[in-house]
Amino acid sequence: MALERNRIHFERSEYDRRLRKTKERMDHAGIEVLLVVDPANMNYLTGYDGWSFYVHQGVIVVLDREEPIWFGRRQDSNGARITTWLTEDSILGYPDEYVQSRYTHTMVYVANLLRGEGWDRRVLGLELDNYWFSARMLLTLQEEIPDLRTRDATNLVNWVRTVKSDPEIRYMREAAEICTRVMNLAIENIAVGTMEKDVAAIVAGAQIAGTDRFGGDSPAIFPIMPSGQNTSTAHLTFDPDRAYRSGDVVLLELAGARRRYHAPLSRTVYLGDPPADLRNVADTVVRGLNETLDHIRPGITAEEVEARWRESIRGSGVEKPSRVGYAYGLNYVPDWGEHTVSLRPGDKTVLERGMTIHFMPGIWLDTYGFECSEPFLVTEDGCEKFIDFPQKLFVR
Amino acid sequence: MALERNRIHFERSEYDRRLRKTKERMDHAGIEVLLVVDPANMNYLTGYDGWSFYVHQGVIVVLDREEPIWFGRRQDSNGARITTWLTEDSILGYPDEYVQSRYTHTMVYVANLLRGEGWDRRVLGLELDNYWFSARMLLTLQEEIPDLRTRDATNLVNWVRTVKSDPEIRYMREAAEICTRVMNLAIENIAVGTMEKDVAAIVAGAQIAGTDRFGGDSPAIFPIMPSGQNTSTAHLTFDPDRAYRSGDVVLLELAGARRRYHAPLSRTVYLGDPPADLRNVADTVVRGLNETLDHIRPGITAEEVEARWRESIRGSGVEKPSRVGYAYGLNYVPDWGEHTVSLRPGDKTVLERGMTIHFMPGIWLDTYGFECSEPFLVTEDGCEKFIDFPQKLFVR
Repeated sequence: MALERNRIHFERSEYDRRLRKTKERMDHAGIEVLLVVDPANMNYLTGYDGWSFYVHQGVIVVLDREEPIWFGRRQDSNGARITTWLTEDSILGYPDEYVQSRYTHTMVYVANLLRGEGWDRRVLGLELDNYWFSARMLLTLQEEIPDLRTRDATNLVNWVRTVKSDPEIRYMREAAEICTRVMNLAIENIAVGTMEKDVAAIVAGAQIAGTDRFGGDSPAIFPIMPSGQNTSTAHLTFDPDRAYRSGDVVLLELAGARRRYHAPLSRTVYLGDPPADLRNVADTVVRGLNETLDHIRPGITAEEVEARWRESIRGSGVEKPSRVGYAYGLNYVPDWGEHTVSLRPGDKTVLERGMTIHFMPGIWLDTYGFECSEPFLVTEDGCEKFIDFPQKLFVR
Repeated sequence: MALERNRIHFERSEYDRRLRKTKERMDHAGIEVLLVVDPANMNYLTGYDGWSFYVHQGVIVVLDREEPIWFGRRQDSNGARITTWLTEDSILGYPDEYVQSRYTHTMVYVANLLRGEGWDRRVLGLELDNYWFSARMLLTLQEEIPDLRTRDATNLVNWVRTVKSDPEIRYMREAAEICTRVMNLAIENIAVGTMEKDVAAIVAGAQIAGTDRFGGDSPAIFPIMPSGQNTSTAHLTFDPDRAYRSGDVVLLELAGARRRYHAPLSRTVYLGDPPADLRNVADTVVRGLNETLDHIRPGITAEEVEARWRESIRGSGVEKPSRVGYAYGLNYVPDWGEHTVSLRPGDKTVLERGMTIHFMPGIWLDTYGFECSEPFLVTEDGCEKFIDFPQKLFVR
């Protein structure tokens, strides 16, 4: 029985478009060969979808070669054959001795590959500030090819990803359906005396179970659902041995994911009769959120969005010293954010149709926090929320 | 209401021991200041436990300073106050402008910190080959401190982690209890016609629900549970839109996790009457696994373990060209492996009491695979399996 190859989730024309946009950016940046190691970028260009990014792997895009080249651990090559649109000539598995070795390095293999094709004399673009491009990878490439000419290609493909196509938006709408279910289940199940882990388990299951029509994926960030004082900071989660108590604030930053495309959403639950200061924060944030969303349209800049938000909450007593949103979409751990657009002072990005942004003005105070966010799509003449979910402090 | 600090899951003496072992290794390597960015290493030394590693953060260990210093995004500082044993003087939150900026970099902040303390003139150890230490981090440090003296400290703390203390082993046994439940549920629920996503959802929920006595965590690797031809490679997973079919092989590489300590286990299910070649592979692997486990005791080297395995399967027709196991324990995404001991030719590590290794001789053939693994603890006079689970090809 032969292997069924090329089970991709978009038309080939979609990948062609992505590749042309990537090569355009490479050309404009003077990059002849691009080493892509970010797993979301690898997926975006080729379809590759496997949890193999804990070893070094990548996709090499060459200006004058039609197909990118996938390289990875030999035992993952069938993963590339199955999940990408690439032909056999573009799939290269390296021997296992390169994996986490003290004597050699996968970049020795890559340097040999570049030399074999004469690409070591071309300008090489590298994703220098990426989880998946360690300092040692750069040092090894430089040791192997001393006269290597490199350019920083950090986020080069991420910027192409920032504007979504219609087929991508369809997956993001499906992710939004999953997220709606997940958030509803979380809020319904939080109650005084219930173990936090049991609600988290329902969330994690629902993220994958999806809907009756389609399933979901494990999102790029685990369920963020701290309670009590753990809500005073941005990235703690449930306590596996604790039950919810009266007087708890519970933050829920949860996503649905479909074909690795995300829909994140944040909401806040209070157990009991909410104190006035929390009610005030909630009212301020929800008002600011909506006043700002009304303002968003193609042509506005990221920093103008943030300024509008800051204007909205002025005088309320609520302060928000960190960015209030970021582009998101296709991703793997550790982040569903795209590391391109940030809604904050200084970001001059002009929003355009097809961008997808998580407007997330999380408030983390001395001993508690409040979150109410909206993922939105920039449309032809405004913006559209991906999820229609009540904006309020939920009381249980 | 003041913040409740220092909610750590080990005695202070445990952290003191870890820190002394780390400083011993630093001293022997000529490293005066160690920048730790691996989230598992940060947790190991301080207790820090948050999903904030998608931005640059770290722990700085200085030979002649008692406490390490945690630095991270300001909105995560309360996470450090709550989850670590550190005192206020050792927790430094940086302003949000450093996050994913095109104009500055968190390493500018770190360089200023080093200079302010005079540590820029000391020898700095860096985890050069780590997901969380990008090439740009090194380049920025070098730009900021041109005469910086650095040493490679990749896996320095990981090697300390490799030998577990009794309190760590207790968490790993709890993780093993969770894993046993998870694996049982997976196998019970796999059936012809059942949606793969529905079984994956049960798995993801059970990983967090844990047992009646304690809850679990989201493991460092998502549920790896491919079916059919997707089992011919190591890192694909369930298809969210597919139901199991008669004739499917299903691989299950699943973990329980407790306080970020793991217990991974692999098993294989066949739906229908298994073909002879799959039965043969299963028999060979199970026999080889047990013959090898019988051989393990303190004093044997990692490569000798692998050689024993290779000897066991010789002549069977089964080949295994990749490593057959690795050290594991405390971890975050993307890997529960510790990147220290590998069971493969050339690894001279002498196994010692307290090491925890996942013996994982996964077999990936042209169109299907087989997995049966055992996580074990090296004991005083042999080894002990963490999980007592039937070793066979499960037939459903």
